[in-house]
Amino acid sequence: MTTDALLPETRVLAIASHVVHGYVGNKMASCVLQAMGCDVSAINTVHYSNHTAYKQVKGTKTTSSELEQLYEGLRQSHLTNFDVLLTGYVPSAEGVRAVGKIGRDIKFNAGTKPGSFFWVLDPVMGDNGKLYIPEDEVPEYKSLLREADLILPNQFEAETLSETPIHDLDSLATAIQVLHTTYRVPHVIITSLRLTADNQIPSSRPVTQPHTPATESADPLSSSTLLLNKPTADVPENKEAVENLTIIGSTATSDFKPRLFRIDTPALPLFFSGTGDMFAALTVPRLIEAVAQAPSEQNLSSTPSWRSPDDVGAADLPLARAAQKVLASMQSILAKTAETCRVKMDEYDARVARGGGEQLENNRHLALMNASEVVVPRHVSDLLNPPDVERFRPKAVRAQTSAIHRESDE
Amino acid sequence: MTTDALLPETRVLAIASHVVHGYVGNKMASCVLQAMGCDVSAINTVHYSNHTAYKQVKGTKTTSSELEQLYEGLRQSHLTNFDVLLTGYVPSAEGVRAVGKIGRDIKFNAGTKPGSFFWVLDPVMGDNGKLYIPEDEVPEYKSLLREADLILPNQFEAETLSETPIHDLDSLATAIQVLHTTYRVPHVIITSLRLTADNQIPSSRPVTQPHTPATESADPLSSSTLLLNKPTADVPENKEAVENLTIIGSTATSDFKPRLFRIDTPALPLFFSGTGDMFAALTVPRLIEAVAQAPSEQNLSSTPSWRSPDDVGAADLPLARAAQKVLASMQSILAKTAETCRVKMDEYDARVARGGGEQLENNRHLALMNASEVVVPRHVSDLLNPPDVERFRPKAVRAQTSAIHRESDE
Repeated sequence: MTTDALLPETRVLAIASHVVHGYVGNKMASCVLQAMGCDVSAINTVHYSNHTAYKQVKGTKTTSSELEQLYEGLRQSHLTNFDVLLTGYVPSAEGVRAVGKIGRDIKFNAGTKPGSFFWVLDPVMGDNGKLYIPEDEVPEYKSLLREADLILPNQFEAETLSETPIHDLDSLATAIQVLHTTYRVPHVIITSLRLTADNQIPSSRPVTQPHTPATESADPLSSSTLLLNKPTADVPENKEAVENLTIIGSTATSDFKPRLFRIDTPALPLFFSGTGDMFAALTVPRLIEAVAQAPSEQNLSSTPSWRSPDDVGAADLPLARAAQKVLASMQSILAKTAETCRVKMDEYDARVARGGGEQLENNRHLALMNASEVVVPRHVSDLLNPPDVERFRPKAVRAQTSAIHRESDE
Repeated sequence: MTTDALLPETRVLAIASHVVHGYVGNKMASCVLQAMGCDVSAINTVHYSNHTAYKQVKGTKTTSSELEQLYEGLRQSHLTNFDVLLTGYVPSAEGVRAVGKIGRDIKFNAGTKPGSFFWVLDPVMGDNGKLYIPEDEVPEYKSLLREADLILPNQFEAETLSETPIHDLDSLATAIQVLHTTYRVPHVIITSLRLTADNQIPSSRPVTQPHTPATESADPLSSSTLLLNKPTADVPENKEAVENLTIIGSTATSDFKPRLFRIDTPALPLFFSGTGDMFAALTVPRLIEAVAQAPSEQNLSSTPSWRSPDDVGAADLPLARAAQKVLASMQSILAKTAETCRVKMDEYDARVARGGGEQLENNRHLALMNASEVVVPRHVSDLLNPPDVERFRPKAVRAQTSAIHRESDE
């Protein structure tokens, strides 16, 4: 029952950050993947006490040679036959090179069996117009993209990798086209886009927002921009707090044309760390599931990169169906977390008021960070059984040179 | 449903080893605790590619100052209000001292609320008459015991800590009495005892067994002796392979007299790594559950160390009830793992035979180690719903100076 039957045995190598407390990076990914029944091997790129949005952290980074040594340990004991590689935050250019070596080695060994290995690459580089990795890491990421089967950049990362400014759906389509053609990446999802009613996309350059510490949206441990919003625990509810966030994804056709779909999600009135990591991790089992459910004549799971035949429409792509379930699970879990957070912060404020003590802004920030941790083990049923799935139905997007139309398709 | 409702919110700090691949130490503990709904913070004492029973491993140890820094990171952000501390393998005397500081700090802060903090200490020191930690670590462990609420030594560790040789139930009772009185440890469980029909206990000194590599039973990363047996994948089935393994536990009375209970489990024909870690981790939520189910007039969860009133019999102790469910879950999961392992090794042998290649003993050993990993995420339902619980009913043990009687009690 439950997790035991959801998936065939699936071996995932996850390379990302470890935090002692809280849920970002590999801590988030391992927890999500294990809850979904996957056998996760975890190489941790940093060992930190907590994520950096707390604005204070202790711990160490893993050197690139330590990363390579850990993989060499697996290799010498014949433990590298992974089905999936999931890579996230890596703190240096040398580290990205080491991750590249690891990925290529697994891929090379799986080479004789098409579809037997799939690389999900989350190019954790920056957000809101700011890099939070060293400059020399960007070209390393660019040279990795060719190896990846699915990449999950946010808007800023997509702009950086494609060298295409995104300001509307049309330019977004162009950026995805570049990622498909230049880097031969078969699957792309761009997370946490803010589309206006007329399908304009505000710049990914930083916007000054009161009470939102800069580091919150520049978390160098995790991919954390999905469903990002300003904390209304601190800011009165306003119109912006109910806007939508959109993901746009695509699986390239055989001639690397995009097949674009979009899913709109209601934004939540709270900043969460680690949601990008959660999205990436949960996409792994849901994509495997969707690929297994594709019509049997497609032999999709034995097709390189699990790329659907050209006649499959955007909204019917396994990637779109996977993202639908992923977002349904996440919306439910994050809404519950937002509510728990509100209760905890009310208690915190009442406690401070009772104590008659002065409220220290830093203490309140720490309490808010802790209260907004997405405690995945408390929400496993929402992972396994995504509620309200229909609400997250993907819609095909038709991109043209000068205009974008949204198709409603069944 | 499932994990979401099992326990109240429970924050656990787990300090033990991390392995990239496989399930021992913190990898096992985190996975088990998260499956049971706990919020686990994990400080990793080593970062290894795999457990050491593979006989080859790459990676690094965490220094004691790194351990302290990680905790300091939690402390400065007010993240140390843990309900439970679970400590396992620590590779040095300085590391054990660091763990002691950490545990005392949490305990001090919880001091005003009796029962609000509980320390489960697995004194991972050695097995079968051999230490696998540095000699100078033993006195450090002895000085830690006073702080612990529950300790989980194997026979050799119990002998070492109590300085009492164990050869029958009577001497075992004496050893537990010493642990209760000398170190004021309220709860003790001694794992993986081999009792003969007349209640004799063979020496914990090493016994030469063909085909059982010495390192298998000297795994310095994990507590792994429970349900240990020789691998019959390599050894023909024999009488020994169906013997029982016994755990004996006790919760001290108010004057530190033992209340002894025993649970016998059928031994499985395979060596597993990490089962001691699994036992320790699973005991945490099951003990919390059993304490919550104690008669309300006991106020057990607000009693220091959750120690039951003196009129509670051994077999009715929450510790005994917890161990019963833990062993029921483990027996089912390990039996399934043993069966999966048998199938995988048959396939391995057939593959080698087909290839006409020579079977390399080391390769076979590596394959066996991998096939015998307890892949916890595939067995969550057995964790949540322990099957066949009645079979593991605890029995009170009455210890006298010269004779031990087993009581059958309801």
